[in-house]
Amino acid sequence: MKIETVDFFYLAMPEITTAADGSQDALVVRVTAGGHVGWGECEAAPLPSIAAFVCPMSHGACQPVGSAVLGQRLDGPQDIARIAAQVDYDSMDLLQAAHTWSGIEMALWDLLGKVWGEPVWKLLGYERSYSKTPYASQLFGDTPQETLERGRRSRTEGFRAVKFGWGPIGRGALGVDVDHFVAAREGLGPDGLLLVDVGQVFGEDVERAAARIPALEAARATWLEEPFAASAYAEYAALAARSTVKMAGGEGAHNFHMARNLIDYGNVGFVQIDCGRIGGIGPAKRVADHARARGVTYVNHTFTSNLALSASLQPFAGVEEATICEFPVALQPLAVELTANHIKRDGNGEIAAPEAPGLGIEIAPAALDRYRVDVEISVRGRTLFRSRAGHNPGPDGVPAMDAAC
Amino acid sequence: MKIETVDFFYLAMPEITTAADGSQDALVVRVTAGGHVGWGECEAAPLPSIAAFVCPMSHGACQPVGSAVLGQRLDGPQDIARIAAQVDYDSMDLLQAAHTWSGIEMALWDLLGKVWGEPVWKLLGYERSYSKTPYASQLFGDTPQETLERGRRSRTEGFRAVKFGWGPIGRGALGVDVDHFVAAREGLGPDGLLLVDVGQVFGEDVERAAARIPALEAARATWLEEPFAASAYAEYAALAARSTVKMAGGEGAHNFHMARNLIDYGNVGFVQIDCGRIGGIGPAKRVADHARARGVTYVNHTFTSNLALSASLQPFAGVEEATICEFPVALQPLAVELTANHIKRDGNGEIAAPEAPGLGIEIAPAALDRYRVDVEISVRGRTLFRSRAGHNPGPDGVPAMDAAC
Repeated sequence: MKIETVDFFYLAMPEITTAADGSQDALVVRVTAGGHVGWGECEAAPLPSIAAFVCPMSHGACQPVGSAVLGQRLDGPQDIARIAAQVDYDSMDLLQAAHTWSGIEMALWDLLGKVWGEPVWKLLGYERSYSKTPYASQLFGDTPQETLERGRRSRTEGFRAVKFGWGPIGRGALGVDVDHFVAAREGLGPDGLLLVDVGQVFGEDVERAAARIPALEAARATWLEEPFAASAYAEYAALAARSTVKMAGGEGAHNFHMARNLIDYGNVGFVQIDCGRIGGIGPAKRVADHARARGVTYVNHTFTSNLALSASLQPFAGVEEATICEFPVALQPLAVELTANHIKRDGNGEIAAPEAPGLGIEIAPAALDRYRVDVEISVRGRTLFRSRAGHNPGPDGVPAMDAAC
Repeated sequence: MKIETVDFFYLAMPEITTAADGSQDALVVRVTAGGHVGWGECEAAPLPSIAAFVCPMSHGACQPVGSAVLGQRLDGPQDIARIAAQVDYDSMDLLQAAHTWSGIEMALWDLLGKVWGEPVWKLLGYERSYSKTPYASQLFGDTPQETLERGRRSRTEGFRAVKFGWGPIGRGALGVDVDHFVAAREGLGPDGLLLVDVGQVFGEDVERAAARIPALEAARATWLEEPFAASAYAEYAALAARSTVKMAGGEGAHNFHMARNLIDYGNVGFVQIDCGRIGGIGPAKRVADHARARGVTYVNHTFTSNLALSASLQPFAGVEEATICEFPVALQPLAVELTANHIKRDGNGEIAAPEAPGLGIEIAPAALDRYRVDVEISVRGRTLFRSRAGHNPGPDGVPAMDAAC
């Protein structure tokens, strides 16, 4: 097969807030090859990501992502790896390229899986897809009481693991944070798995982060996620050495090496990979292999649609000992409506990467239209990109965006 | 003062080739505050960088760069650091943000220096600007003979140090590379400083890179630059342990931590920072301080205009023991014509960061018009960015691009 088209669908809620909620917009990617269709999703700012696909070349090591993708052969996983290497090399100086490529890479796996009639995790070499305990992923409340109620609600909904993130943590007095940690544990009950995500709020201030450790230990948190900037490995390692609560991080990795470094130099106990940022499923699988070899637990990072969720489950679907996974439970309507089917908890309250071919998730075309953000980019009077309803329908009848490279 | 406007000027040569020549296009930034003007340059793909400034917000940690910059107070270096921290945090998930911000940050230093009547290196705390030995930065020839001739020409032009980069190295048989290294040394003469840049061509293949070390040692190369992917620290360290030729790298760092990691984990002997990518002059100065503390030599990375060259000299202008600097000698006409004045070699063949206030480089408005690339970006029918000649002249009379946030 030959990659014929790559179309981007920029979707957004009518109102976007400053909440740390990544499901408020989406950049969905459709790839066609040999008359087949695959879908992926970038976890990225849509406009710069589209620009990185269509932009004029700056020089040999700063080429648009499109030039390494369109027209390429796609006959097996080795082709995805080959194209990935070419994107890495030809777009070395185009920083946004990794985010743009991530959604395309997912779509290539989805397409290949559909053609071969196999789920992606089988193409990755796994024998089976193990069920995982999903943790409800939500934000801290504005008050400890709100945090407590959110914990209770998750418990009522049957979640055995809950992650609280962002909110007021690290922004004020230590006591406020302690109250939230206590409230989270109380809401969740004594047996639940408590995960805490502070969204890089301590920057590189090890002491401020360390001041929270006793309270996290008392609340029996399983991990402290992203205390520091994504590449501040020395700070991660310094805090890890002072804490029985393990460190977690990795969502900021935009290539395999960055995740490997966080494991090897940052001494995290959990590595959290977003397939929509790291360059897709291939490099994420490499991270899963490396984590396993180092005794580190791989976890997906997912705060968007079930398409992204399926993609993010694939790289560690077959890792039996990696038993928990992120499961966004407060998605915006666009992220829910984007897919015709959804990954649901089974009778044991667990979820698994789908058994269906490809990513096993079907796109709902109506959502692509309902939440569409019209974009037009022209350079030197030539339109490089234009989104338009009903224009250029693909093999599956879904109207596409125009991307001229 | 308050930051009033940030304008982007996307310039390009009429024809762009796949040569690894970063001067084929440019993204120049003008900032105004309190009626004063500062200039900077992003070393980045222009279109995605512009998009990162004007794009709609995706969520609280994925905001456009513009929202953290426009309207901010600018009364001293601490304000630049404060805005930088806000960009880092608010645009955490917008990968391209660091490249966009880099040019703005430079322009803020330039503006501040002009207002205070001091060169930027003084604002950074240096007493004086030490002269450096510039190395002629050029590409390997297609044949060893061409490489030899380029070395000879540089020597004739009075350069005591020459860097050869990219070209055929690492793409074919070992013998070809050996011939080029021999030719480079021969062309340069026995006394010249020979620097070799292989542009990440070995990816993560330590053995292929190591096979070239004996020839590099025989040619008495001072450094081997970017043998591997920018974040492949373990591979850098592994090769460093097997070579008397020191490793160099760092141009891919898009924040302080990445450069620090390359020093601390990659064991490079030279750290090469591009102020147009790392987030500007502030983080580059932090790298210079860290390098000094670790006995590593700081070097600028510059392959664009003299505006970028001046900015890249500032962070280590006052470091006496850092005696060499990159000096692009084969710039495209746009990069030469962009500035009204140029950094020239003195009687000793050395160059220094200018003594004039700010970055000490004056923009030539005609070049902004001559090489202008017209861009228009609209989202939901609203124009977020439009470049147009003669439109919206700034305080210095230079026509600006429109950026509506």
